[in-house]
Amino acid sequence: MEGLNRVRVGVIGAGECSQEIYNVAKTVGREVAKRNAILICGGLGGVMEAAARGAVEAGGVTVGILPGENEHQANAYITIPIPTGLSHARNVVLARVSQVLIAVSGGYGTLSEIALALKMEKNVVGLHTWRHVPGIMHAEDPVEAVEMAFSFLHP
Amino acid sequence: MEGLNRVRVGVIGAGECSQEIYNVAKTVGREVAKRNAILICGGLGGVMEAAARGAVEAGGVTVGILPGENEHQANAYITIPIPTGLSHARNVVLARVSQVLIAVSGGYGTLSEIALALKMEKNVVGLHTWRHVPGIMHAEDPVEAVEMAFSFLHP
Amino acid sequence: MEGLNRVRVGVIGAGECSQEIYNVAKTVGREVAKRNAILICGGLGGVMEAAARGAVEAGGVTVGILPGENEHQANAYITIPIPTGLSHARNVVLARVSQVLIAVSGGYGTLSEIALALKMEKNVVGLHTWRHVPGIMHAEDPVEAVEMAFSFLHP
Amino acid sequence: MEGLNRVRVGVIGAGECSQEIYNVAKTVGREVAKRNAILICGGLGGVMEAAARGAVEAGGVTVGILPGENEHQANAYITIPIPTGLSHARNVVLARVSQVLIAVSGGYGTLSEIALALKMEKNVVGLHTWRHVPGIMHAEDPVEAVEMAFSFLHP
Repeated sequence: MEGLNRVRVGVIGAGECSQEIYNVAKTVGREVAKRNAILICGGLGGVMEAAARGAVEAGGVTVGILPGENEHQANAYITIPIPTGLSHARNVVLARVSQVLIAVSGGYGTLSEIALALKMEKNVVGLHTWRHVPGIMHAEDPVEAVEMAFSFLHP
Repeated sequence: MEGLNRVRVGVIGAGECSQEIYNVAKTVGREVAKRNAILICGGLGGVMEAAARGAVEAGGVTVGILPGENEHQANAYITIPIPTGLSHARNVVLARVSQVLIAVSGGYGTLSEIALALKMEKNVVGLHTWRHVPGIMHAEDPVEAVEMAFSFLHP
Repeated sequence: MEGLNRVRVGVIGAGECSQEIYNVAKTVGREVAKRNAILICGGLGGVMEAAARGAVEAGGVTVGILPGENEHQANAYITIPIPTGLSHARNVVLARVSQVLIAVSGGYGTLSEIALALKMEKNVVGLHTWRHVPGIMHAEDPVEAVEMAFSFLHP
Repeated sequence: MEGLNRVRVGVIGAGECSQEIYNVAKTVGREVAKRNAILICGGLGGVMEAAARGAVEAGGVTVGILPGENEHQANAYITIPIPTGLSHARNVVLARVSQVLIAVSGGYGTLSEIALALKMEKNVVGLHTWRHVPGIMHAEDPVEAVEMAFSFLHP
């Protein structure tokens, strides 16, 4: 945990995704870890797995806020599994724990996390995600997304 | 409670609203109560108060799923206050308790409830609310909205 | 709902119980309803069913704060089912919603609700329940228990 | 995070404590960290701070499941702050996340966590804590407590 700070960046997205989106999320995770922040995600597959994998492979720490009651549902790249047993209410915890969020693609679950984060007055950066939701700041690529996210943390 | 059934219709919307939206929400509440269903809402002001008022004035029963720790924040038209102390996580409970939801206008909090309800595979009827969210069935007026909501309950 | 006030009395206890405890809990429910208060319980079997049955048979209103995701697990005497989907975290909501609690017998789940209620500085009346937990006020019979509970509400 | 496994040991206790209890909790934290497990606690003062301090000073990793909405309430020895915004419902998450728990002294909040953990069929080791609650396995000193806790993990 050398050099780790307590900055927490949430990466949110669907539990299933295309290879293209997987690669985007993995790069997001890597860039978060390179900046010594903790990567927060929902701990399951798809975008959550990709982001955690990118972070862990770059030497980072990942936290998975899981909906279920045990850690077995966590993907293989979660350093700290947090099985909440709260089902969808874990989305609220995920938004709350993250100081800034990056949404990569995503369905209704991701939309709920985006809306909750914006309600909590947190910044949300979007990559190929929900259009037409005012307040999301859209980035062109994963490196830009992470740079935007950190710019909100250290204004 | 004569004739009351256990059907629960959620009416969601912002804590502050225009007089026009207030009247729309009040009519929604009245129509829900006329069908002997329980009106579920967030228990605060604006659309939540209007819907509860319409229901109670028509002899109905209203439940307010409150974010705070006591009932004092409930509006005057809540029959059964449910102070959860869960802050925004009460949105998840509200979506879960409701068998069908009607969204009247609304901001990020309402959007989170819409997204959570759609994630839970519940039907959501919209009145002057978020456009561009696929899955919401938009109605033209409050009576049509309530008719649509009940058509999903009794297919 | 004629005459109903918004006073909420929680009755807590195990999901399975002896016939003797069932009868005690049923009398507690009846006495709560006779005082026009809303009976709050966990909505399942055993003590929860007995209390709700006593209340409903006396013309009262009962709210079941359920751990699961739908109302099918509610017992037959629940007027307002509140399926939370929060699993054991519904115990916290149950303690929070109740203004005063009456514990009838009970196991670890009931003990958690007693402890949470005492932590929230609510009064807890006990009937054949956990001894050795300071703060519980023990009653001799169901009528006395309900009288004690209401004395805390209207000091 | 070299050598860290994903074993999660919860250490629970009050937010204020005597110097003697502080030292006991600190030793518990140190022994947990020496076994490469993650220390889970409520993130605040007293026993929670002592346990986290012991773990961090031994090179360990600590997670603080906080009741409030931001990390500022976390003590100085929390590696990963998890601000839940759930108030007392965070006790349920704390019990859920921990695979085994060690209770050091404690009041009603700790009692609620003990009861919830036992309800979830987790093992709870006690040090100078609630007597008369069947199911708690009482240890004589902190080293024995941690040894007992790990014996339940690797039977």
